[in-house]
Amino acid sequence: MATILIKGGTVVNATGAVAADVLVDGERIVAVLAPGSQALGSINADRVIDATGKYVVPGGIDAHTHMELPFGGTAAIDTFETGTTAAAWGGTTSIIDFAVQRYGERVEDGLAAWHEKASGNCAIDYGFHQIIGGVDDESLKAMEGLIDEGVSSYKLFMAYPGVFYSDDAQVLRAMQKARETGLLTMMHAENGPAIDVLAAQLAESGKTAPYYHGIARAWQMEEEATHRAIMLADVTDAPLYIVHMSAKQAVAQVAWARDNGKNVFGETCPQYLYLSLEKNLGAKSDEWGDFEGAKWVCSTPLRSEEEGHLEAMWQGLRTNDLQMVSTDHCPFCMKDQKELGKDDFRAIPNGIGSIEHRVDLLYQGVVDGRISLPRWVELISTTPARMFGLYGKKGVIQPGADADIVVYDPNGHTSIGVGKTHHMAMDHSAWEGFEIDGHVDVTISRGTVLVENGEFRGTKGHGRFLKRDLTQYLV
Amino acid sequence: MATILIKGGTVVNATGAVAADVLVDGERIVAVLAPGSQALGSINADRVIDATGKYVVPGGIDAHTHMELPFGGTAAIDTFETGTTAAAWGGTTSIIDFAVQRYGERVEDGLAAWHEKASGNCAIDYGFHQIIGGVDDESLKAMEGLIDEGVSSYKLFMAYPGVFYSDDAQVLRAMQKARETGLLTMMHAENGPAIDVLAAQLAESGKTAPYYHGIARAWQMEEEATHRAIMLADVTDAPLYIVHMSAKQAVAQVAWARDNGKNVFGETCPQYLYLSLEKNLGAKSDEWGDFEGAKWVCSTPLRSEEEGHLEAMWQGLRTNDLQMVSTDHCPFCMKDQKELGKDDFRAIPNGIGSIEHRVDLLYQGVVDGRISLPRWVELISTTPARMFGLYGKKGVIQPGADADIVVYDPNGHTSIGVGKTHHMAMDHSAWEGFEIDGHVDVTISRGTVLVENGEFRGTKGHGRFLKRDLTQYLV
Amino acid sequence: MATILIKGGTVVNATGAVAADVLVDGERIVAVLAPGSQALGSINADRVIDATGKYVVPGGIDAHTHMELPFGGTAAIDTFETGTTAAAWGGTTSIIDFAVQRYGERVEDGLAAWHEKASGNCAIDYGFHQIIGGVDDESLKAMEGLIDEGVSSYKLFMAYPGVFYSDDAQVLRAMQKARETGLLTMMHAENGPAIDVLAAQLAESGKTAPYYHGIARAWQMEEEATHRAIMLADVTDAPLYIVHMSAKQAVAQVAWARDNGKNVFGETCPQYLYLSLEKNLGAKSDEWGDFEGAKWVCSTPLRSEEEGHLEAMWQGLRTNDLQMVSTDHCPFCMKDQKELGKDDFRAIPNGIGSIEHRVDLLYQGVVDGRISLPRWVELISTTPARMFGLYGKKGVIQPGADADIVVYDPNGHTSIGVGKTHHMAMDHSAWEGFEIDGHVDVTISRGTVLVENGEFRGTKGHGRFLKRDLTQYLV
Amino acid sequence: MATILIKGGTVVNATGAVAADVLVDGERIVAVLAPGSQALGSINADRVIDATGKYVVPGGIDAHTHMELPFGGTAAIDTFETGTTAAAWGGTTSIIDFAVQRYGERVEDGLAAWHEKASGNCAIDYGFHQIIGGVDDESLKAMEGLIDEGVSSYKLFMAYPGVFYSDDAQVLRAMQKARETGLLTMMHAENGPAIDVLAAQLAESGKTAPYYHGIARAWQMEEEATHRAIMLADVTDAPLYIVHMSAKQAVAQVAWARDNGKNVFGETCPQYLYLSLEKNLGAKSDEWGDFEGAKWVCSTPLRSEEEGHLEAMWQGLRTNDLQMVSTDHCPFCMKDQKELGKDDFRAIPNGIGSIEHRVDLLYQGVVDGRISLPRWVELISTTPARMFGLYGKKGVIQPGADADIVVYDPNGHTSIGVGKTHHMAMDHSAWEGFEIDGHVDVTISRGTVLVENGEFRGTKGHGRFLKRDLTQYLV
Repeated sequence: MATILIKGGTVVNATGAVAADVLVDGERIVAVLAPGSQALGSINADRVIDATGKYVVPGGIDAHTHMELPFGGTAAIDTFETGTTAAAWGGTTSIIDFAVQRYGERVEDGLAAWHEKASGNCAIDYGFHQIIGGVDDESLKAMEGLIDEGVSSYKLFMAYPGVFYSDDAQVLRAMQKARETGLLTMMHAENGPAIDVLAAQLAESGKTAPYYHGIARAWQMEEEATHRAIMLADVTDAPLYIVHMSAKQAVAQVAWARDNGKNVFGETCPQYLYLSLEKNLGAKSDEWGDFEGAKWVCSTPLRSEEEGHLEAMWQGLRTNDLQMVSTDHCPFCMKDQKELGKDDFRAIPNGIGSIEHRVDLLYQGVVDGRISLPRWVELISTTPARMFGLYGKKGVIQPGADADIVVYDPNGHTSIGVGKTHHMAMDHSAWEGFEIDGHVDVTISRGTVLVENGEFRGTKGHGRFLKRDLTQYLV
Repeated sequence: MATILIKGGTVVNATGAVAADVLVDGERIVAVLAPGSQALGSINADRVIDATGKYVVPGGIDAHTHMELPFGGTAAIDTFETGTTAAAWGGTTSIIDFAVQRYGERVEDGLAAWHEKASGNCAIDYGFHQIIGGVDDESLKAMEGLIDEGVSSYKLFMAYPGVFYSDDAQVLRAMQKARETGLLTMMHAENGPAIDVLAAQLAESGKTAPYYHGIARAWQMEEEATHRAIMLADVTDAPLYIVHMSAKQAVAQVAWARDNGKNVFGETCPQYLYLSLEKNLGAKSDEWGDFEGAKWVCSTPLRSEEEGHLEAMWQGLRTNDLQMVSTDHCPFCMKDQKELGKDDFRAIPNGIGSIEHRVDLLYQGVVDGRISLPRWVELISTTPARMFGLYGKKGVIQPGADADIVVYDPNGHTSIGVGKTHHMAMDHSAWEGFEIDGHVDVTISRGTVLVENGEFRGTKGHGRFLKRDLTQYLV
Repeated sequence: MATILIKGGTVVNATGAVAADVLVDGERIVAVLAPGSQALGSINADRVIDATGKYVVPGGIDAHTHMELPFGGTAAIDTFETGTTAAAWGGTTSIIDFAVQRYGERVEDGLAAWHEKASGNCAIDYGFHQIIGGVDDESLKAMEGLIDEGVSSYKLFMAYPGVFYSDDAQVLRAMQKARETGLLTMMHAENGPAIDVLAAQLAESGKTAPYYHGIARAWQMEEEATHRAIMLADVTDAPLYIVHMSAKQAVAQVAWARDNGKNVFGETCPQYLYLSLEKNLGAKSDEWGDFEGAKWVCSTPLRSEEEGHLEAMWQGLRTNDLQMVSTDHCPFCMKDQKELGKDDFRAIPNGIGSIEHRVDLLYQGVVDGRISLPRWVELISTTPARMFGLYGKKGVIQPGADADIVVYDPNGHTSIGVGKTHHMAMDHSAWEGFEIDGHVDVTISRGTVLVENGEFRGTKGHGRFLKRDLTQYLV
Repeated sequence: MATILIKGGTVVNATGAVAADVLVDGERIVAVLAPGSQALGSINADRVIDATGKYVVPGGIDAHTHMELPFGGTAAIDTFETGTTAAAWGGTTSIIDFAVQRYGERVEDGLAAWHEKASGNCAIDYGFHQIIGGVDDESLKAMEGLIDEGVSSYKLFMAYPGVFYSDDAQVLRAMQKARETGLLTMMHAENGPAIDVLAAQLAESGKTAPYYHGIARAWQMEEEATHRAIMLADVTDAPLYIVHMSAKQAVAQVAWARDNGKNVFGETCPQYLYLSLEKNLGAKSDEWGDFEGAKWVCSTPLRSEEEGHLEAMWQGLRTNDLQMVSTDHCPFCMKDQKELGKDDFRAIPNGIGSIEHRVDLLYQGVVDGRISLPRWVELISTTPARMFGLYGKKGVIQPGADADIVVYDPNGHTSIGVGKTHHMAMDHSAWEGFEIDGHVDVTISRGTVLVENGEFRGTKGHGRFLKRDLTQYLV
């Protein structure tokens, strides 16, 4: 197999940066070397990539994506092929998507179906969490087999009654099973039944625009469910991971839990760091009128910048009260998809597409002085790897690790938008007009260069299924 | 210069472990290599250390020591030679000691005096924090020069009126200077004036035994000063590092500050993790009667295990509300030294000697399931390096770093006590009888083997002064 | 009508005590007089009650009772007659009982049924809260009429799925209706669905004794539901009253809400102040074996004294984080009733009878130094009156008020127990063996002496229905 | 002596209102009577005051005034005569002023000097707290005699180094003495030494306008000192009363202390409810330029309305996290007095005059829906009486109490300002332009009408010294 020497760059890991060369042999990193050392003689690699003036970082891991997810009578528009290709463009070399089980379905069948969708179609490596949309004796039993399948985490929903919703009795039973097996519980923490009342009242009173999606899903609904999930986890002694947090009061609940020694983790998403109720969900345009905001209908919703939610998410990342940033990538076109809710925000498919931009958007946080350079690497790669049982293989520039490597140019520039940088399948970009003071120059996955010189050189079959270990974050 | 290959071990850094070989060339690590890779051919090192079945970790950094510190009419009994030799035995390859300035003295003279004491005498590398015992216009001015001297942190005392004590006006002015220069403020946070009243009242009422040292220095006194330091730092927008924390309520104050986005850090010490008011400070023996407790007179004092302080320190380490574990190594003999306070606990020199055992005592936390293996490395080496401007050079197994390496045997065993493992100069061990399920097999400092096969092979002149950068923890 | 002069006593109201005489004319207090004043000449009352050395206080108001409540296939054993008679013996002159509506029933019918039970049978005045056990469009509509009926508060249950349980959508809708009408929402805050899982698991594993009732209803279940109720109230901007609190962590949630300016109130009961999981729920006896604890099966359950819950309830009363003490009087005999759960704690009817002892048990708190004398009056009478729209008429010794008066002897003594002081209908006393350093000497209701010289002189038809105003606590 | 019947009004006490007549005989209330009752026959009083449509409330008690206080080279401009006269105009019938002891002075002399100033000069009753400005063995000893003198509370200052300042050792010793004697500790909680540094730096950099008084006395300085006082009180187990609170973060500290069961109380002042840093301290005028703000220089300073401090004070009053509203009346003229600080805000005498307006300004809170009518009475009279050992005699409309009565007209109107309502001695009003939707119609002190029909009918010798009991708030 071929060797690649990435030379002259600054290797950045989660605790700091160092000038070092990286030697790849086949699919793995085999050495990290001090530049200029004579001890190993001169190295003859098959290929040398010059990383002078650039950062050499572990490939991004997006631990929350929904390719092809059926939702609200349609399905997320990115296939595993288009989604993972866009990911590679943006410096992400692994995703963890969600296989789905619903009431009356077998967990095994749900998982198999998602294997079917992904297998042979991914440009980068992929793993699965398991959604348990119907907790009952059978699905609880099936959860016991997940770890052997390399699926060491599963997700429940306190929202979406009638779709994915679990009531508290179900949540409790699932958490007990998680405690027993080592599965990590991921939670969509919003009080769905109460939200549905508020949403119906708004819609019935003629408040049907996308903006009211944000009003119905009030921060109290997220805060409350977060607290409830924490206490149900507490009574079962199971660790807990809250997905896509956006309300500062909910983050305060996570901080409180952690201060009291509970194993509770929080994830936010780029949209909750940059986009807002006022600017986006309430946006109007010539083309779409006040339905423009539909582009940013997602759950939990965008929050008020004025009330300080966005600032609080950044602070949570600094203080480590939030440990993770995933995209919750779940893209829908405006045409034919988001349009389903033209007359009623409740019918708008929920989701934003960001898989291509997470690494860049977080790097902008470094430029803006919001997070440190090592914290960037920790957020885009190291913590996701540790949290979801991939560390060692992924998440670090280190011998023995998969050669998932991004060469990132801090002097480069990236303009986001349709016709600029946008390889996802949506007919619009939720990030139109964002400018990033940095650039993904090279993306390498298991030793194969996927992106270089502004060209995609990957193939859709390259990505392999990741059998994940138990979470390493607690060990 | 010579090359050493450390082969077959498990390299542990702060985010995880990997099977890897480490190549040292002269004073530095030049490569970390995947075992068995053929890409670099076979490596001919001058020396090979077999680390099979063992952990290869960055050398310990003890960021809080007091060699030869004058205190209460005597001086800490470890010289820089004996103290750093003991450190090497215990897997610690760097210390940061405290140079002292007092009222009426010049800061430059204080620093020079400590250079004088240390220079040519240390077995391992050493740096200095600067104690500012007399804040005035002159010493504030002198603080501006410290960073150029490689002294990027300084300490104030809210305790010890008449000795090191700074009042709030002085603390504020020093913090303003720290904000201006980038110096990190370290704080001994106890309300000294109030403690002195309580101590005098106890002593006057005949309560003169060492136990009353712990009663006088009530947890409220530490909690209060911690809060005060946090708010003074807040008003000056300066980061803050609280030393040797032992009260759970004080840690709660640090957690509160951090939850609110303030740059506040906390350090505890091994004694606050394992030793207690009940068991130790109140100890009695045939030899010393109720003066036995004098062995464990230190400030902040040992706290009540019953009230949950010890458990809270471990929890703080898990939740990262406490980031650091240093020893506050400040050893005094019972004979002639601690004895000064035979009739009045107030005259007992304050201090415990632990420099030799920190790495082991924290490793026992891994064995006991209290912290993870990577967290151990983070605590003994990586965080101290980042906190105090040494990372890259120290604190990590990585090419380019100083070859400060410990080979640690998880199957070894260490019995602590006089006549067993005890190379410090005190006539007793504060840790007598502690058994550790692990062992420091080899200690290497800048490529030189100091300890191996149960023998000390270092020399007292080997250690060099560490010019430290600004704290990297905030970057 | 007749006049009564209560002479020589110390009148105690909620803010303090004063030596004063009280003149009753017919059903009302018409004057409070400084003893010895000549300004009004000598007063010729039809009757003089000598209160020298005694406290003259407003009659107790027990705002939470369940006479004749159907529960678990049986019904609370006290009728309105026996229950209110016992109340009078114990210095309580008003109760607020709960009318019940269930799924599929009309609210109006529920209220009418309770009027039917009570009318003509009460020894003291009585009012109703309305239980809404089935929130739907019809019952929500019916809630609008309650205030006109003098029923200004209603109760929901987050516990007891399938019986009284409301889900969060129902709770939200009811609170919106409360906000609209001015009704006060009372909440049984326990997570019923989760508790039922835990209880079933315990029972299935053979843990069927009454003790496991307390284990299944873990404090997390109360804390969680309390927080949830607070946030649902917050999103609807409705005041909230949590009934029968027993967990310190739940009280902390109420304190947190209040510190943040929310109108949230908390009620505890005598059993949570004096009785415990260890001592009572886990009690064994020769007669009943480990089923003895069934006497104290109530929900929320008795909590662990060791964990500090009892102490926290007293503290909450001192700090006013808890404002109310009601009995939740819901008595069942051991024979034939509690016995239903001999083989499964889930079948034990929930409830304790305390209506006769609340005034005494709280007075013991004064003797024990836990609360002040005026706070006692505030707790037994003034706050219940203000909270539930009775103040002015009830809850205070003041001209214009109903002459509901208790003469309480601080030098008297009361021994509680069957055959001693026990006029309730149960075949046992939950308070057997309690000794009170005080005694209810005289109980007067609307100018009629009910209890005097150890004799009951009341009649079952004396009590009238109380049409209550809106809560005055917020005004 | 004469009798007065106050007829037809609504008597308001701290727990509620009732239609009742009040009979005064000489200096005391002798009866409260239900209107229209025939039981006592018709009452022939020497005088009848018609209170129809009006509130009859206990006279206001202002527990924090500084008549004639020497400060900054001048003295508060109100004498005991002018100040108490103004008080009577505004419905206040008792004050508690501060006798002063300084370093090197005897406590007894300080108290005697204030008796000298007040005796024979007051229009209303007056008591004293004792300022201990110099804590030492002698003054501590002298504190033991205060209670016998009817002075059951004393004040310390954590601000004003070199003037009234006590360091933490002194505070601790004084609190111990308070614990021993039953004295209530009142605390001016600001970090004086740190404030002096900040103030000097501002002044030296040319920021000399009154506005910078508010900047120098940052909220952190109040929050910190409040926390410190709480913890010093905690270690001594002594109750604590924080005076003139204005920072929301400091109130949060009091709330935290109370939630944890500590006996900590907080007082705010009308200026912190209505006036702000932006509007007042930073005010400019033609006459005074940016020195206009000097009118509102007081300590603690006016706070930012934008940051929510004013709103937080109102909330604290609602939640009872703040129990008291006093004026801290300490008036200085602009001419010759405030002017002393024309070039340096540090030389502006600290103080605002409000004694005449407290009752009105708080009543406006009732009109504005911020507090309830009974809470108004509790704040203006009942709580001050209970807090400072006057209840029963003062603070309540009840037989036996002093006839200190205000007839307040809710349909009246009061325009505040020089030439309108302003009987204080300052050459300006801090409240110029405030309009109150209510009016003090009649003020009665111990049975003597002081104010009626817009005329002052009192005399300067009428007021008597109040020997106070221990605080009743804890009993």
